[in-house]
Amino acid sequence: MQLHSMWEHYPELKTDLADVLQTIEENIQIRDKRVEENIKALIHAGGKLLRPAFALLSANLGPDYDRDRAISVAAALEVLHMATLIHDDVVDESSIRRGKPTINSKYGNHYAVYTGDYLFTICFKILSKHSDSISNIEFSSKNIEKILMGELDQMRTRYDLNVSVKAYLARISGKTAQLFALSCYSGAVSSKAPRALAIKAWNIGHYLGMAFQIIDDVLDYTSTDDGLGKPVLNDVLQGVYSLPLIYAMRGHKQDFEPLLGKKAEMTDADLRELTTLINRYQGTAQAFELAGKYTKKAQKEIAKLPEGAYRDQLSALTNEILTRQI
Amino acid sequence: MQLHSMWEHYPELKTDLADVLQTIEENIQIRDKRVEENIKALIHAGGKLLRPAFALLSANLGPDYDRDRAISVAAALEVLHMATLIHDDVVDESSIRRGKPTINSKYGNHYAVYTGDYLFTICFKILSKHSDSISNIEFSSKNIEKILMGELDQMRTRYDLNVSVKAYLARISGKTAQLFALSCYSGAVSSKAPRALAIKAWNIGHYLGMAFQIIDDVLDYTSTDDGLGKPVLNDVLQGVYSLPLIYAMRGHKQDFEPLLGKKAEMTDADLRELTTLINRYQGTAQAFELAGKYTKKAQKEIAKLPEGAYRDQLSALTNEILTRQI
Repeated sequence: MQLHSMWEHYPELKTDLADVLQTIEENIQIRDKRVEENIKALIHAGGKLLRPAFALLSANLGPDYDRDRAISVAAALEVLHMATLIHDDVVDESSIRRGKPTINSKYGNHYAVYTGDYLFTICFKILSKHSDSISNIEFSSKNIEKILMGELDQMRTRYDLNVSVKAYLARISGKTAQLFALSCYSGAVSSKAPRALAIKAWNIGHYLGMAFQIIDDVLDYTSTDDGLGKPVLNDVLQGVYSLPLIYAMRGHKQDFEPLLGKKAEMTDADLRELTTLINRYQGTAQAFELAGKYTKKAQKEIAKLPEGAYRDQLSALTNEILTRQI
Repeated sequence: MQLHSMWEHYPELKTDLADVLQTIEENIQIRDKRVEENIKALIHAGGKLLRPAFALLSANLGPDYDRDRAISVAAALEVLHMATLIHDDVVDESSIRRGKPTINSKYGNHYAVYTGDYLFTICFKILSKHSDSISNIEFSSKNIEKILMGELDQMRTRYDLNVSVKAYLARISGKTAQLFALSCYSGAVSSKAPRALAIKAWNIGHYLGMAFQIIDDVLDYTSTDDGLGKPVLNDVLQGVYSLPLIYAMRGHKQDFEPLLGKKAEMTDADLRELTTLINRYQGTAQAFELAGKYTKKAQKEIAKLPEGAYRDQLSALTNEILTRQI
């Protein structure tokens, strides 16, 4: 079980995360061993496991910590995340994910659609083992509605040079922050945290998720190699304009029109020119600044939590997200 | 609320089915009203509602009939069915369903994939309202695995002229009979039927589902108009060879090779010739006979159930499936 090296600094979390992967593995038993192997390969493809990590840490917030329950909730969230990734890859026609060929590119859309569906049900199966988690299930469908809406918003504003910062934030709030918020919230609920505290956990997760996605979008423009495990600037070719570009275009739209007008036909030289323009107009710097603001908001909420080792870890992990290079 | 005319003969079921649709409607509330309207249109597109009907009838098997619970279970099953239909249409690239344009053809794959995902979660949301239904949830994920495997089997044997009757039966057992079996089983469980009776209900649903799918595949070759609400012989163009064709090819494969070798390029004239060949070699007649055998198996199990109006209705409905023209 190979976990991301970042977890070396969190030995307890590392043990728990290994058990999260173990729980997922145990629940994925398919007669067709090829499908099973594909899913298991994805589990071990080195996802950072941030969502389960935040769920596990938040499971210390309530009075009734139960390790099995916390691990189940964390596992269900990672499986839900995997299901949405697989379906996103179908929709975006992506061929690479975490440095490996996607299921849709390797086996076709049919395989990928049904595998995602299967993982959705595994998510609920894992949750259903703990009847206390019923409120989580009730919650998840409202939640997935918002994730769905975030993805659809993203589709609707494709190739739109006038996409606003506000629209971008609404989009990533659904697409990413929602699942981070649900992770922190569900972890808290799994330990029977009082409602006010669970809502605090929700807000922390929301801020974290916003910061995480903005940094992800900044790295899309700044990373020069394939360290991200996905094709650099894939989003912009697909017409999905993220924060650094949106900021850079403010007041300079005419500079970008000739390049972006080429849509999916942009060459590597075009993409380099685009990156140069974004840097010239401080697009990445401004985006990074906003990510910092969200991180600060998260830290401010974390500081209000009851003292404890988990609070320190939550805080350390939050900083790590802002400073991550991959 | 326009229900299929077949329900005129079952006034109580008709009232319950109207409430099933009502329950589904109430649970589908999306901020984006366009998505909401699309889903609601699908609900009212005149699906026959057989799965919820069998769930509702089977809810009379146990000692603890609860109308709300029975309607929730029936609604969850129809929503699950809708989710799989929408994803099937993405995978099969179908453009028509129930006589109307499919979501994927009208709004693109992204819309359809996420709408299906949303409906999956609504299915679990509806179930989660009744904590007694937890065992249903546990059951559903094993079940959906089998449905998934049926769909993947179908993909794997595409354009395979040597596909066997056995492989066909395994495929429809997963693809269709599984959900009919789950419907009868879940209905029974919702009324706290003893395990032996719930398993009987499962078997009845399985036989029913097998008969239903075979008849569906027979109608694909015999219906001359668009009464089915889907393009006739779409399956064969996609390389999905169903029972009438499989039977007809036994001992006469060479007659079919030149036609089927054209794959998706088959013309209307080719399809007419194919239908003629299938009739000549008694393909539809043999398939119809097997559907009759499954119907008889279902009837034999139904006859063993405790007496009551629901047993008579179950029996009448089962016959209707075999003799249906649409």
